[in-house]
Amino acid sequence: MRIGVLGTGVVGQTIASKLIELGDKVTMGARDAANEKAAAWASNAGEGAHAGTFADAAGFGELVVNATAGGVSLAALDAAGADNLTGKLLIDVSNPLDFSQGFPPTLSVVNTDSVGEQIQAAYPEARVVKTLNTVSANVMVNPGLVPGDHVVFVSGNDPGAKGEATALLGRFGWPAERVVDLGDITTARGAEMYIALWIRLMGALGGPSFNIELRKP
Amino acid sequence: MRIGVLGTGVVGQTIASKLIELGDKVTMGARDAANEKAAAWASNAGEGAHAGTFADAAGFGELVVNATAGGVSLAALDAAGADNLTGKLLIDVSNPLDFSQGFPPTLSVVNTDSVGEQIQAAYPEARVVKTLNTVSANVMVNPGLVPGDHVVFVSGNDPGAKGEATALLGRFGWPAERVVDLGDITTARGAEMYIALWIRLMGALGGPSFNIELRKP
Repeated sequence: MRIGVLGTGVVGQTIASKLIELGDKVTMGARDAANEKAAAWASNAGEGAHAGTFADAAGFGELVVNATAGGVSLAALDAAGADNLTGKLLIDVSNPLDFSQGFPPTLSVVNTDSVGEQIQAAYPEARVVKTLNTVSANVMVNPGLVPGDHVVFVSGNDPGAKGEATALLGRFGWPAERVVDLGDITTARGAEMYIALWIRLMGALGGPSFNIELRKP
Repeated sequence: MRIGVLGTGVVGQTIASKLIELGDKVTMGARDAANEKAAAWASNAGEGAHAGTFADAAGFGELVVNATAGGVSLAALDAAGADNLTGKLLIDVSNPLDFSQGFPPTLSVVNTDSVGEQIQAAYPEARVVKTLNTVSANVMVNPGLVPGDHVVFVSGNDPGAKGEATALLGRFGWPAERVVDLGDITTARGAEMYIALWIRLMGALGGPSFNIELRKP
């Protein structure tokens, strides 16, 4: 399928490359059409890989992935344009990390709001699903890097959109039974605030390639 | 050993009762010496169970457990008195839940601070360890309620205090290898902010008796 990936960082490149590997066609979107990282990715990623602006990528995609940093996601989507998002599944994998005070980062949105909600509120005609933000980029597209069963979350207002997102997660290697539906898009607050623990776990465990499994009676 | 448990709610009662069951002597502390919940607990919990003020409980304990609500913990510890905390292991199991806007609660302390840090800063002579706040009261003292391996966290500045806390967790049933040391007391931010996810998971899973296991290569 045709997918627009917004963002040229590690997360955007990792997801975009996985999609090409899976046979999808991808336009990676950046603020500027001349973005060097997006151009380099498009030349190296193989057949079906293109680079363009945020609007090019969003217009190209039957579904759109927001892989920009959470603090600039609304600006990126504004550049992408509401018309290019209407009716589409918009998968938001961002985290509102604020590194302005150094490491560890704080969250620029917490408690009574989340980036996922802000995006859904700004683009009511998009079908926003928050997912994958709770694992590192390499685990997002290759859950088998982490041994055993472990989970990923989906938050969104549209059950159909969550189903489509779960199908895409399945293509990345996430079994449907390990995709936990947290509820509507407000539950993205939980998935985003978990990152404060994730950051400390990364320190305690010595690296980012880990995840959590749920245990219940 | 002699333990002071500050707080008369479900968490305080559950921990205090477990300690009595394990053969410890416990004074449950409340704001008022005449607190009915503490008195009822002391009459029913068996030998070694007493009730008193926060100061009575903290003075009695060789170690002190803060099981008050996070939003009132500093006030409770102020009533307990710095002299009654000096040099002692102070186990903080609180969460800064703010229900003033209804359910789900928000956190009254986030991002650049945590209740654990606030307590350590206010009582530098106490040896504060944040732990157990990431599971429900019944799981705190009976991890076997949740099947399989799953983890609990410790955060604190004093490695010896974390070792003592881990020993107490062991008496509750937590194997030492499932106690994850997140680092110094600032890492309590991660453990406390995780509660935003925990609350949504409680909804998705249909109840509070669950926990997470870490998976890594």
